[in-house]
Amino acid sequence: MATALDSAAQDQIFRTARTHNVLGGSVTDQQLRDIYQLMILGPTSANCSPARIVFVRSRQAKERLRPALSSTNLDKTMAAPVTAIIAYDLEFYERLPVLFPHNPDAINWFKGNAAVIQTTAFRNGSLQGAYFIIAARALGLDCGPMSGFDNAKIDAEFFPDSKIKSNFLCNLGVGDPWKLFPRSPRMSFEQVCQIA
Amino acid sequence: MATALDSAAQDQIFRTARTHNVLGGSVTDQQLRDIYQLMILGPTSANCSPARIVFVRSRQAKERLRPALSSTNLDKTMAAPVTAIIAYDLEFYERLPVLFPHNPDAINWFKGNAAVIQTTAFRNGSLQGAYFIIAARALGLDCGPMSGFDNAKIDAEFFPDSKIKSNFLCNLGVGDPWKLFPRSPRMSFEQVCQIA
Repeated sequence: MATALDSAAQDQIFRTARTHNVLGGSVTDQQLRDIYQLMILGPTSANCSPARIVFVRSRQAKERLRPALSSTNLDKTMAAPVTAIIAYDLEFYERLPVLFPHNPDAINWFKGNAAVIQTTAFRNGSLQGAYFIIAARALGLDCGPMSGFDNAKIDAEFFPDSKIKSNFLCNLGVGDPWKLFPRSPRMSFEQVCQIA
Repeated sequence: MATALDSAAQDQIFRTARTHNVLGGSVTDQQLRDIYQLMILGPTSANCSPARIVFVRSRQAKERLRPALSSTNLDKTMAAPVTAIIAYDLEFYERLPVLFPHNPDAINWFKGNAAVIQTTAFRNGSLQGAYFIIAARALGLDCGPMSGFDNAKIDAEFFPDSKIKSNFLCNLGVGDPWKLFPRSPRMSFEQVCQIA
């Protein structure tokens, strides 16, 4: 049986980890690959793995982001070393014959069923987005995830003529703990959970 | 700047962690509280924190789950020490005046806008579901998450007369590594990611 991670490791991925508005430092291509190699191991239903990621790093690519960003997210995103577009592929099921070899029929659970496709891609693509955040933190980077942008503009610019849809953005870099606001309140166990 | 977690810690939350069909051992109420206290710290947009959780542990409560389970998920779920119903509250925005004190107007971003409510609750509730899985693993437990069940039956049984909707189920316990199937294949970095 596994034991709990030591307290410092729990701190790094949850307790002292925070959403950073100001991100600097440098992020290497190898770090982006390392994040991917960890996050892709997190579970998805039938291993459907719908997440798709664009790491926006170059000045030119950052300028393609600019028109889609809300005013409160603009400056911090343009300044971050890398901004990841966490997206999901509505044609994820085409890969199931490879990803889910246990059942060659799995592709037919989805084909032609737009509602099931959307729900499955969005649920599992979001799970994978969270694995991404935790993986980046586990590798010593800080994150600035955000939903405040124009999804349709991002999709038209980065995913034209495809079934890939943006989910959320996540800035990556090294944060400055002195520039953080106090953590916002959380609800108690009793407000959120019950044991039945 | 943080350094990467040691390799054993990365293994425990991602590399050697697996979805377990056979879960035994015991799970204490304190462990359920510890999972919550970690997972609730993960980021959500405007700290909206829409996830709601029912930990199904008693024989009586497990029997209330039974009619909603798919045949492939039935026996393993009835046998698991605890099954968490990971749900989300479509009235999450009522809590924003407390959860997001930076902007007292945040509640009005959502009120009366059913599409934004649904998208926000499902995205962030799913992120929190992934934080839940990672938190359980970080605390030394194994998970068996699954989508194969009748959401409407669960909602009618566990969340009647409310705006809380089930997202996915997650069995909790201690897994037996000898009863695992080989890990299903994952796509390469190049198949999923681009650096722009």
